Amino acid sequence: MRQLVRQRSSCTLLLAALLLAAAVASADPLASWANGVSKNSIIEFVGRVTREGSADYIAPRERIAVFDNDGTLWAEQPIYFQFAFALDRIRTLASVHPEWRTTAPFKDILAGDTKALAASGQQGIVKIMAASHAGITTEDFDTIVGSWLATAKHPRFERPYTELAYQPMLELLDYLRSQGFKTFIVSGGGVEFMRVFSEQVYGIPPEQVIGSSSATKFVAVGTDGKPALIKEPQIELIDDGPGKPSGINRFIGRRPLLAFGNSDGDLQMLQWTAGGTGPRLVALIHHTDSDREYAYDRSSQIGKLDKALDEAQRQRWLVIDMKRDWQRIFTAEQDER
Amino acid sequence: MRQLVRQRSSCTLLLAALLLAAAVASADPLASWANGVSKNSIIEFVGRVTREGSADYIAPRERIAVFDNDGTLWAEQPIYFQFAFALDRIRTLASVHPEWRTTAPFKDILAGDTKALAASGQQGIVKIMAASHAGITTEDFDTIVGSWLATAKHPRFERPYTELAYQPMLELLDYLRSQGFKTFIVSGGGVEFMRVFSEQVYGIPPEQVIGSSSATKFVAVGTDGKPALIKEPQIELIDDGPGKPSGINRFIGRRPLLAFGNSDGDLQMLQWTAGGTGPRLVALIHHTDSDREYAYDRSSQIGKLDKALDEAQRQRWLVIDMKRDWQRIFTAEQDER
Repeated sequence: MRQLVRQRSSCTLLLAALLLAAAVASADPLASWANGVSKNSIIEFVGRVTREGSADYIAPRERIAVFDNDGTLWAEQPIYFQFAFALDRIRTLASVHPEWRTTAPFKDILAGDTKALAASGQQGIVKIMAASHAGITTEDFDTIVGSWLATAKHPRFERPYTELAYQPMLELLDYLRSQGFKTFIVSGGGVEFMRVFSEQVYGIPPEQVIGSSSATKFVAVGTDGKPALIKEPQIELIDDGPGKPSGINRFIGRRPLLAFGNSDGDLQMLQWTAGGTGPRLVALIHHTDSDREYAYDRSSQIGKLDKALDEAQRQRWLVIDMKRDWQRIFTAEQDER
Repeated sequence: MRQLVRQRSSCTLLLAALLLAAAVASADPLASWANGVSKNSIIEFVGRVTREGSADYIAPRERIAVFDNDGTLWAEQPIYFQFAFALDRIRTLASVHPEWRTTAPFKDILAGDTKALAASGQQGIVKIMAASHAGITTEDFDTIVGSWLATAKHPRFERPYTELAYQPMLELLDYLRSQGFKTFIVSGGGVEFMRVFSEQVYGIPPEQVIGSSSATKFVAVGTDGKPALIKEPQIELIDDGPGKPSGINRFIGRRPLLAFGNSDGDLQMLQWTAGGTGPRLVALIHHTDSDREYAYDRSSQIGKLDKALDEAQRQRWLVIDMKRDWQRIFTAEQDER
């Protein structure tokens, strides 16, 4: 009898644990999303493809969800955060590059002349990226980006950039993973830059981050006597626009079930996702909240959303209105400023 | 009381299930490996990095294991299986390419003139790969490779190529995954070719296959009115030799804990893996069994193993002797022929 009682009590504990787990699971996984069409569409879609026996059921291995990064998972104004890193890096390196004091675009950065900097155009950007991102080992680059993220602050929100991830999107990533989805970043940003924080901030491991990359050169014996990969200035892959479906094909090899973006650079990724057979969920984040974040679309220099917005209306893709659909923008407490 | 009895019996069932699971887990996971240094080294290494509290313990997310494909996971003689596919594809397409009857290297393939074909060299190979792998959608290519794998047979073993995967390596992949490792292919072979069978044969999903690739072009409206990715002839990435550590960095972004290869094309991948801090397991498969498979190394045209063998001896990497270390080569019953 004593044994039975012990078994009974362990079974009761087990039952209690199961009930608790069920209660936790039934808590709203998208708590920061306002009730409405956007939230409902997501929950309805996920339920439909994960419910066994459903006509639209999709096996877990096929549950691929892809997300643009800048402007979709974290903010991108007033300049891409990776570009802010590049500018800070140029300022740091200026002491060992006296020639930069007289060479564009470096002199414009050092003088804080944003107008001249903007005028240096694509060619200027390539020079800045090469000077700030190349000529060091991949491991040193990791360390440098990590230190920058730990100390740099966003000019308007005065918080570390990693605190400018969108809380509703973090909830969505968690929710999808809890439903058997594998979450990927598919971004025009540099793959090695994003990987430094993707696991900690988004729960997305480095091997699920797809981005633009420059070439790397393998050296069997580096300066410390060990093999190293040196980052080179030549651009190898551009994961933007039509490069996004190519990147998905190159890295994942399956067509996604779900794709989120926020700009014209995501158009082809969304078309490619929507073009698959069976159920697909395709969505655009529309930046409509200048009080809590920023409001921009068709005429923005950064994160321009024009053609993709037209296509979304034509194809009836989900358009998420940040002001209306998100009760909260950032994870950090203070949302307004 | 009745309720107690019912609970007791369900708890007993649970206990029985747990005991059964434990018994299954204790069966030899590397049954096709002969007892000896190779098998012991693998088991000792895996135990060391997975045992919690061990000084060498590595968290599951860092347990990255990479494998070359041709000659490491499946056979590669007398010619790479992907090249056998390309030749068969040329023969199939010849009816719609009458000009091939008079153009090298196609005429040599159609005439079965292997000597002339070999003489066409690298330039010939590029033409063959472009003609057999490009100009179609990624999805059509999948289908074509799938049909070929279902019907083509290896000239010596007279079995489908997918039955020439190495049984000991399949066991190793399963064993590593059961111990929390994430298994990747890192091969010079075409990524889209390997993905057609990697999940079914090796249990490795497409997103964990890294290989060489040609460019793809996105078209918003393909011939069937849907978005498509067209395979282009231009080579985009070569995942061989020094391209392997670059490929690992590009696709995975973590340094592997364990790497297996079999040829000089794997040298830099093994150096890169071995060069990490903490415990690493690096191994070469040495093809030493001409009865059951093939015997080749320093002077082979395919899978040449020369510099990497010297380096393995210098660095005391594990060298797996197929004849001595593998009790069984292939999954299919008949191992000898």
